[in-house]
Amino acid sequence: MNLDEKFAYMATGQPYDDVDPKLMKARERATAITQKLNNTMDPTKRNAQFTKLVGQAGKDPFVEPNFRCEFGRNITVGDHFYANYDCVMLDGAPITIGTHVLFGPKVGLYTSNHLFDPVERRTGGCTAHPITIGNDTWLAANVTVLPGVTIGSNVIVGGGSVVTKDIPDNVIAAGNPCRVLRPITAADKTGFNGQDLSAN
Amino acid sequence: MNLDEKFAYMATGQPYDDVDPKLMKARERATAITQKLNNTMDPTKRNAQFTKLVGQAGKDPFVEPNFRCEFGRNITVGDHFYANYDCVMLDGAPITIGTHVLFGPKVGLYTSNHLFDPVERRTGGCTAHPITIGNDTWLAANVTVLPGVTIGSNVIVGGGSVVTKDIPDNVIAAGNPCRVLRPITAADKTGFNGQDLSAN
Amino acid sequence: MNLDEKFAYMATGQPYDDVDPKLMKARERATAITQKLNNTMDPTKRNAQFTKLVGQAGKDPFVEPNFRCEFGRNITVGDHFYANYDCVMLDGAPITIGTHVLFGPKVGLYTSNHLFDPVERRTGGCTAHPITIGNDTWLAANVTVLPGVTIGSNVIVGGGSVVTKDIPDNVIAAGNPCRVLRPITAADKTGFNGQDLSAN
Repeated sequence: MNLDEKFAYMATGQPYDDVDPKLMKARERATAITQKLNNTMDPTKRNAQFTKLVGQAGKDPFVEPNFRCEFGRNITVGDHFYANYDCVMLDGAPITIGTHVLFGPKVGLYTSNHLFDPVERRTGGCTAHPITIGNDTWLAANVTVLPGVTIGSNVIVGGGSVVTKDIPDNVIAAGNPCRVLRPITAADKTGFNGQDLSAN
Repeated sequence: MNLDEKFAYMATGQPYDDVDPKLMKARERATAITQKLNNTMDPTKRNAQFTKLVGQAGKDPFVEPNFRCEFGRNITVGDHFYANYDCVMLDGAPITIGTHVLFGPKVGLYTSNHLFDPVERRTGGCTAHPITIGNDTWLAANVTVLPGVTIGSNVIVGGGSVVTKDIPDNVIAAGNPCRVLRPITAADKTGFNGQDLSAN
Repeated sequence: MNLDEKFAYMATGQPYDDVDPKLMKARERATAITQKLNNTMDPTKRNAQFTKLVGQAGKDPFVEPNFRCEFGRNITVGDHFYANYDCVMLDGAPITIGTHVLFGPKVGLYTSNHLFDPVERRTGGCTAHPITIGNDTWLAANVTVLPGVTIGSNVIVGGGSVVTKDIPDNVIAAGNPCRVLRPITAADKTGFNGQDLSAN
């Protein structure tokens, strides 16, 4: 399998060999570009590195340092993507992000898993499951998204949440594990209390 | 509004435009100083960068790399402030920290929120709510503090907690969401079991 | 006490003075080596820095940037250790990690605690309690392990978990606080659903 075929196979969720030399090399490419990205203080140049790194980026991405990823090429972001400090994405499977999506600091999206059998894990056995995020969704600070999760459009995920299951459109969700707290309604147009983003 | 007026307005909790060019420039200043801070290995010089970065710092601050913030100028720390690795503070509204406050690694304080309405969020609508921490308080590793929260004096917040509501003086609190576990008593003067910092 | 004696004393769990000049110097050594490690893009050279940093490392460690620790010398890792991005270990007491152990991004192991009495805390009073991890164990992304915890062999800890108590062998555990979800069985040999790593 060439690299394209390998990634197409990995996107199906079947087990793959994590230490395949082609994958190792693809990771080194990502580490090299992200290192340059993270050392670039001019936002215009930094964001150009991001566009070069990922598979597909819309208009006007803005990424703060330190951005980290596994491959980069499996990441697609729509227009006006914003990721605050210390975002990590492990993109063994596709990560697909809509338009006007905002990430607080320390957000992590993880598609890649080791296998559950210890003997297979020792030799690099992995699976990966896609993560999809709709439009106008905001993940607040320190949100962790686990493999295979789909988060809808116009969703707000509260700070410190761990998203283990799918989240539908138009809701506020929070907690570990993350649960839907309430729908977003017309009242939120004028309700500026930033505090009710918690799993209380 | 000049920058001082803008920040005074933001401190009231009213919505503001996050992509105001003056704010963007103030963020670039913070990114530039923190980059220098984080690349400085001599602690004395590194801490001098911190004092330059923030609005007001007491005696003997000590900050490990990587320290990140949004503006810096809205951060006030009392004497003997210590922040371990990878601390992030988003200071759209004032962050006010007392004396002898200690942060474990990966602590995040977030005053800044996007608006809950997706259309307003698209164009940069935000609110910010102050965070206040008393004296002699210790936030353990990977604690997240959400907008508008006040944490008292002599408080210990357990590792991995997400603080969504105010915490009174003289207690141990932990969990996601963070809840008070017990008061700190005279027995803690001699009780050296470091393990009971959890929401069990 | 010389430095070896000091660390032997600290490993007993008795209170110690965190700002002892010998400890401060030992921390500066760790910060200097980790800074070099984190700026080294060639994995072979980066991993050699890791081996130099820690007390004892087995064959083929692989550590992604940014790796952080308190001293390094109290860290022992077995063969084939892998730590993904932004791992932090505070090793005031020994951290002992078996063979074939895997860490996702943002994992933190914290043996070091400040004292619970605020007056003693002000002058640097600390305790530390060892952390031990068996063989073939995998801590997923953003897992926090608190002082004194022992995690067994062939354990999987789900992403975003906060481990406050011991975890036995051969289980999947997750949540804040982290609890055992189920044993790992023969079915996991062929069950490749990476999604059921959550405290639902």
